[in-house]
Amino acid sequence: MQFWFEFASTYSYPAALRVESLARQQGISLEWKAFLLGPIFQTQGWNDSPFNLFPVQGRYMWRDLERICADLELPFRRPSRFPRHSVLAARIACRFAAEPWLPDFVRAVFRANFAEDRDIAQPAVLEQCLDTLGLPGITLLEQAQATDSKALLRARTEQAMALEIFGAPTFIVNGEVFWGNDRLESALAWAVQRMATVKP
Amino acid sequence: MQFWFEFASTYSYPAALRVESLARQQGISLEWKAFLLGPIFQTQGWNDSPFNLFPVQGRYMWRDLERICADLELPFRRPSRFPRHSVLAARIACRFAAEPWLPDFVRAVFRANFAEDRDIAQPAVLEQCLDTLGLPGITLLEQAQATDSKALLRARTEQAMALEIFGAPTFIVNGEVFWGNDRLESALAWAVQRMATVKP
Repeated sequence: MQFWFEFASTYSYPAALRVESLARQQGISLEWKAFLLGPIFQTQGWNDSPFNLFPVQGRYMWRDLERICADLELPFRRPSRFPRHSVLAARIACRFAAEPWLPDFVRAVFRANFAEDRDIAQPAVLEQCLDTLGLPGITLLEQAQATDSKALLRARTEQAMALEIFGAPTFIVNGEVFWGNDRLESALAWAVQRMATVKP
Repeated sequence: MQFWFEFASTYSYPAALRVESLARQQGISLEWKAFLLGPIFQTQGWNDSPFNLFPVQGRYMWRDLERICADLELPFRRPSRFPRHSVLAARIACRFAAEPWLPDFVRAVFRANFAEDRDIAQPAVLEQCLDTLGLPGITLLEQAQATDSKALLRARTEQAMALEIFGAPTFIVNGEVFWGNDRLESALAWAVQRMATVKP
């Protein structure tokens, strides 16, 4: 199953924190796909999050997210700035997608943004997320800002558009697209069903 | 629990067909609140359903709805026209909200739109929905088109806006707002929890 997420996206937070353990429980392998929503929103004529452009939806979303996190017993603090710039975090997640520490890094960044109200646009915050995992933060940050790393994230976001991804989180199971934290269970069920069908 | 729905709204269909039995199972009383989304979308600058204005979301929604109906074993046929004009159906549902036959009528109209691809904008279709329930269709249609019935629906839609309802279906439990068919279970759980708290 592919897990497409955006570090600035509110509903990506609960999804990112629970997707790995749920997938593992069901024997589903997971690909972590960081991408950027900004360029996708721009193609719809939006220069900001729809939750800011449409304040009524925005107010509902914050309350809904608060309830969801309470149900899941996830810590939640509404970020003092929304959406936070996620380009650098996404470059790291994209450049090091295959590293065994990647899921831990992704969760650390989401917690920084949505549980600790820290500014994930700041290299120092991301460096600390990496350092805490016992990784060489400064070195990895430098690599993530190299030209080829930037190109990787651009290509990833273009791939998202080609797949008609329009929001985050999005789960893809063999071409079947599921949008939203509230579709995680459906996506996993689809993956399980497909495994059952494929097996001899 | 208040169930706010719009006859043209795709996700209102599965919600309308399952809300009553689920609420009854949990001992939750239900108020059926027909309203119109069109005037609400207009305040956001949309002169059509967002699923038409944003075709990528629209394509996803149709597939998602198809999967949801399959899971719930609800018949589904994609309407040949979307959204269908729902003013007359909504006037009936608003004018006769307290009648014991109202839930059956609502389900009949949703089935006509989303399972049978019939044009619920046509008075003859609505008349048949009423007649099939053993009701005097023509008489009820006339009453639903009286000036005071029109005013009722306008007031209802204005009330929806005042409540910051921006989509359908929406469930409201003591001021707590839940949006979407996929929030029905959460809304019911909220209602059950509140009953438990209120009881002596």
